Amino acid sequence: MSPPFSRWSDPVLGTVDTQREHPGTSCPTDSQRRAPNLGDERAMMTSQGELRRKVKMGVRSDSWTQVSCPCCASDQVEPLVLIHLAPDVQPTTKKWIMSRIEAPEKDGGAALLAHPGEDRDGDIILVSAPRCTLLHVTEELGLCKLYEDGSMTPFSYQDRSSFKNIDDMQEFMTVAERQYVVKYELDSLRVQRDLYIPGLPEAKGLLRARGSIFQKLEKVGVIQAVIPLHDQSQLDSLAKAWYSGKQLWSQPLDSIQAYFGGSVAFYFSFLDFYTWALVPPALLGVVLVFLLPAGGAVAEAGKGDEDGPSVSGHMVQAVFSMLWSTLVMELWKRRSSSLSYRWGTLQLTERFAEPRPGYHGTMGYSPITGRLEPHFPSWQRNLRVGLVSLPVVGLFLGLVVLGIAGFYRGEALVKEVHEHRGSLFSAGLLYVPSLAHIVYVNFLGTVYSKVALALTEWENHREESSFQNHHTTKVLLFSFFNCFAVLFHIAFVKQDLPLLRKRLSSLLIVTQLVNQCTEVLVPFLVDRFLSSSEKNLKEDDPKVDKVRAQGSLPPFPGLFAEYIELLVQYGYLSLFSCVYPLTAVLLLINNVTEIRSDAFKICRLFRKPFSAPVSNMGVWQAAFEVLGFVSVISNCWLLLLSPRVKEFCQEAGYSSRNVLLFAILVEHVLILIKMILAFAIPDEPDWVRIKREEIEYHSLQAFNQQKL
Amino acid sequence: MSPPFSRWSDPVLGTVDTQREHPGTSCPTDSQRRAPNLGDERAMMTSQGELRRKVKMGVRSDSWTQVSCPCCASDQVEPLVLIHLAPDVQPTTKKWIMSRIEAPEKDGGAALLAHPGEDRDGDIILVSAPRCTLLHVTEELGLCKLYEDGSMTPFSYQDRSSFKNIDDMQEFMTVAERQYVVKYELDSLRVQRDLYIPGLPEAKGLLRARGSIFQKLEKVGVIQAVIPLHDQSQLDSLAKAWYSGKQLWSQPLDSIQAYFGGSVAFYFSFLDFYTWALVPPALLGVVLVFLLPAGGAVAEAGKGDEDGPSVSGHMVQAVFSMLWSTLVMELWKRRSSSLSYRWGTLQLTERFAEPRPGYHGTMGYSPITGRLEPHFPSWQRNLRVGLVSLPVVGLFLGLVVLGIAGFYRGEALVKEVHEHRGSLFSAGLLYVPSLAHIVYVNFLGTVYSKVALALTEWENHREESSFQNHHTTKVLLFSFFNCFAVLFHIAFVKQDLPLLRKRLSSLLIVTQLVNQCTEVLVPFLVDRFLSSSEKNLKEDDPKVDKVRAQGSLPPFPGLFAEYIELLVQYGYLSLFSCVYPLTAVLLLINNVTEIRSDAFKICRLFRKPFSAPVSNMGVWQAAFEVLGFVSVISNCWLLLLSPRVKEFCQEAGYSSRNVLLFAILVEHVLILIKMILAFAIPDEPDWVRIKREEIEYHSLQAFNQQKL
Repeated sequence: MSPPFSRWSDPVLGTVDTQREHPGTSCPTDSQRRAPNLGDERAMMTSQGELRRKVKMGVRSDSWTQVSCPCCASDQVEPLVLIHLAPDVQPTTKKWIMSRIEAPEKDGGAALLAHPGEDRDGDIILVSAPRCTLLHVTEELGLCKLYEDGSMTPFSYQDRSSFKNIDDMQEFMTVAERQYVVKYELDSLRVQRDLYIPGLPEAKGLLRARGSIFQKLEKVGVIQAVIPLHDQSQLDSLAKAWYSGKQLWSQPLDSIQAYFGGSVAFYFSFLDFYTWALVPPALLGVVLVFLLPAGGAVAEAGKGDEDGPSVSGHMVQAVFSMLWSTLVMELWKRRSSSLSYRWGTLQLTERFAEPRPGYHGTMGYSPITGRLEPHFPSWQRNLRVGLVSLPVVGLFLGLVVLGIAGFYRGEALVKEVHEHRGSLFSAGLLYVPSLAHIVYVNFLGTVYSKVALALTEWENHREESSFQNHHTTKVLLFSFFNCFAVLFHIAFVKQDLPLLRKRLSSLLIVTQLVNQCTEVLVPFLVDRFLSSSEKNLKEDDPKVDKVRAQGSLPPFPGLFAEYIELLVQYGYLSLFSCVYPLTAVLLLINNVTEIRSDAFKICRLFRKPFSAPVSNMGVWQAAFEVLGFVSVISNCWLLLLSPRVKEFCQEAGYSSRNVLLFAILVEHVLILIKMILAFAIPDEPDWVRIKREEIEYHSLQAFNQQKL
Repeated sequence: MSPPFSRWSDPVLGTVDTQREHPGTSCPTDSQRRAPNLGDERAMMTSQGELRRKVKMGVRSDSWTQVSCPCCASDQVEPLVLIHLAPDVQPTTKKWIMSRIEAPEKDGGAALLAHPGEDRDGDIILVSAPRCTLLHVTEELGLCKLYEDGSMTPFSYQDRSSFKNIDDMQEFMTVAERQYVVKYELDSLRVQRDLYIPGLPEAKGLLRARGSIFQKLEKVGVIQAVIPLHDQSQLDSLAKAWYSGKQLWSQPLDSIQAYFGGSVAFYFSFLDFYTWALVPPALLGVVLVFLLPAGGAVAEAGKGDEDGPSVSGHMVQAVFSMLWSTLVMELWKRRSSSLSYRWGTLQLTERFAEPRPGYHGTMGYSPITGRLEPHFPSWQRNLRVGLVSLPVVGLFLGLVVLGIAGFYRGEALVKEVHEHRGSLFSAGLLYVPSLAHIVYVNFLGTVYSKVALALTEWENHREESSFQNHHTTKVLLFSFFNCFAVLFHIAFVKQDLPLLRKRLSSLLIVTQLVNQCTEVLVPFLVDRFLSSSEKNLKEDDPKVDKVRAQGSLPPFPGLFAEYIELLVQYGYLSLFSCVYPLTAVLLLINNVTEIRSDAFKICRLFRKPFSAPVSNMGVWQAAFEVLGFVSVISNCWLLLLSPRVKEFCQEAGYSSRNVLLFAILVEHVLILIKMILAFAIPDEPDWVRIKREEIEYHSLQAFNQQKL
């Protein structure tokens, strides 16, 4: 057994006794954290459970920096995060970074454990978190944990002995949470005064007071990546349960949440929920197309351009689609809140935690938490959002419309030219508008994504979630506009239903084919190709090489692409479904494979992503709901345009003005019904509400009992 | 000086030592209230301040029932509430009621002070509240009070010495709050097991276990009224500052809040705010009508039926009205939340306090507060609201429409008959439809008001505010429909703008005249008449007779009529203002007198009402906001109908279908802008948000620090 207070023994740097550097640091505390007045005996006792754990990865604990409190001393340390440094990094820089990581919080450190890696290259640092840090951050984030009475209760460090599994960090927190704690602590590393980073040239090594250390280091290229490490055996068993085909009807959501964290788990939960929700419209579509006589002819998109489904079928589809989209989103909200309770994220306190690293402003003591932090007035942020971001986004959306207009104009022009001249050159010209439009759209997209990020950064959001929501909203609007502008143009301006039907069905089929290719075939091939390079690592290769290999995977591109794919699908379905009733069937087939391929992608093809604990889908929820409202308008309009309805009205002798007025009335009534429904269905199940109110009541009681 | 523990000495009932009846009750505590472990010395010390107070009404304290805790003993007691009993009530019943009032909470009493009155009739009980009860209920309701650091903080009994003015109940709580505390305690008086009320015949005296005592007593007629008492000198000075004409531009809102309580103060604050908000549309109206050449002709409603304002004036008015209504409501929300902070109602905890007396369900321990109380599942309530109340309300609205249709049909019929016959009888017939309609509407209104109350009662709401909101919504919808159905019919179905203009201006002028009559003249006359009877009481008459005289005033009819008047005004203004641009001017004139007459009414003509501490206008806020959205639709439509716009379009050669489509587009865009505006303007000022988050953070901290 190695002694509980291991010494820093680095092959490159030699032995440094950091205990001497920070004398008398017995526990990580900062102004924020109340001094944990636990008896040392009990602390030692509880850490016995931890000592008993065998950590899967056999990094010798004596290579780790020491823990700064005795209760966290442990024989085995679990490496959680890999910091990938530039190859040319100076040993002094690396040493300084490690010292920042392992310094206690009151000295402005991260109170984590660092390991220099076992090879001589010295371009990696492994980071782990001692028990005290894990517990303190759990409290700071407002995570709920299983209390002894079986309910999920906001974790309290003071009362930690009443929480279940408190002796066993691997049981108490999920691996995703432990890794997020490390990221949270690394992100909140700041310097107290202006400082030159050791080992860097003066020109780029200057760190301003209260600047984020890791942000700076990433900017100057010292840190290349911060990667949460995979746990191979856990990953293998998760992958087996997830996409190996055994469980066809469900996904192991709890295991996903434990391993990949909240935001990933919420995506897959929604995907699951949404796929099941597609069953009723798919059934309806099948009934309308194959079983009712009138609609039979339009089943294949290619033929039957002239007729649509029967009037009654059309109406049924439109009203059903409206009710369905409302119900799905309301039920999802209830599901979402019960998942959030189960995963302990119902009471997140992000607004009281450390601000995100990029947040800046005049330094001052927060009137709320009393902590020293930057302050940026929210009215100023609102002004920036309203007077700059909004117009800029509007401008770009205008440019998209302009592009489409230009494309149509150009197409008409070259057609005319071709008809006049009829030469080979003019035939080639026919392709120019399409090509120009594609180039234009891509260029616009690239510029916009940069602008959106810069704008959101400039808006200076305090919370990461708020930043993400604003950024997502911007990109989302643009992507959505890009996808649907043409369809809306066809539906509302050209008013050409057959063309819309053609476009929609070809889009659906093309999307599906492209999806199947990029998400199933390519990953499969890549895996074959990649896994061979991975298999070069033999069983007995050093663990460190395996760790290092994870850094060679491409970074996870984020869930944006996945969500927008779902949203666009949902858009096809709810906005235009009455034009092409089989949409839901195609989407259902697509999603069943989508679940598997997304799971495979995140497990095998990319680095593991950090994933913050979240309590819902954030802005995506709102996006789906807004789409529901737009779909009412769109369906009413499509109903109005449908040739059958036109015919029907002409036969009955209604004037087109009256029909239009009637459609407006129906639209307003449907929107009213939708709002009443959304209002009447509670957003959380009763039992979640009771649990939440219980916690609120207890904290009120606590507030009243304390002396301020 | 009388001894601090006064004995019950009633001229009718004789002396009863209730201290002996409840031995060892040193302080009012119930399962809910933590035993206040204050040192007795300090408690006696702080009550010295109270002893020093001279209460304005010289009821000898030795006629009061004794206080059950030593710290609340006082020489002078302030009578707060008058309970008016039936004249034939038995002395044993009265004695039993008083014993319930003065028993400590742990014995199921109200922990208040009761006084039998000084005359021999014995049909009144005066009630006051000792300091401990006042403070405990303040905490239970979640009222904020001035903390020593100058911020409004939720009152904590434990930490009471840190609050300002804690030694002086008259300063610490407003008189309205003290009276509400008495009502709250009386309402929560319940019996623990089945019991026959002493002195009542068995047939009607049975009180079921957990039944509300006061509800039962009022039902069987033992209690005729529970009236908060006026404080004449305070009332006089308030009245002087309020409506005696000195302060023309502002109302003493804080004094109103202190004397009449939260809901009344919020009504007058809104009236004030809204009247100021009328200035811009009034100016615009004046400019459009008198200064712009095109609109000049329509200034008088009687002539110029054929032309409306110019197109551009029309547009300006419509867009302005849309923006104005949004801004007014958003700014009011901000004002409302800062008032709520100032008045300490930002953190009300009604859902954790005692349920309203009428609430029933299976008895059980609440999972939230742990208190024994009835439980009624909320899904069942939602079902009742959705499946019964909603259709019933819809039915009545349908009956209103039916009535209008019937009226028009009948009118057409009698006109035809008159034209055919032309006799005196048929001329008399012309009045029948109007009369029948008036009778029908009144009958419907009477039935509906009963049905609405019964339905809301049957929905079984736990909180008083929720009950009020549901009840108000029901009555509101009906009243609003009654007012506007005819106007909507003219605008949307008949599409007859000149008639609409005529109706609107005559409604406005008639409403004003009726208002001036009923709210200024009648009150003035009534006051002359009433005050003479009041003046029969000479200066040296017993105080008790003066108190009793307050019971002879009619009960305050509530704020509903006042709010609906404002809402209807606001409806005229925002829904149809572009038809009659001078609306705002007329309303502005009306409101300036309205403020004075409403103030006079509440001060002089009615009993003082109980008024719960509230944090906003409740459902009225939503009603005004919804009206804002409806107004966009209505304005777009009126714009479309305007003859000038029609002319303009015909000249420009747009087809009516395209104009209609354009109007729809404009409507949707305006609603979108409205929603974005409402979303972008924060509902509370930044400083209120910070204060609120500060409290949330502290209670989180307290939660984390305690052991559950």
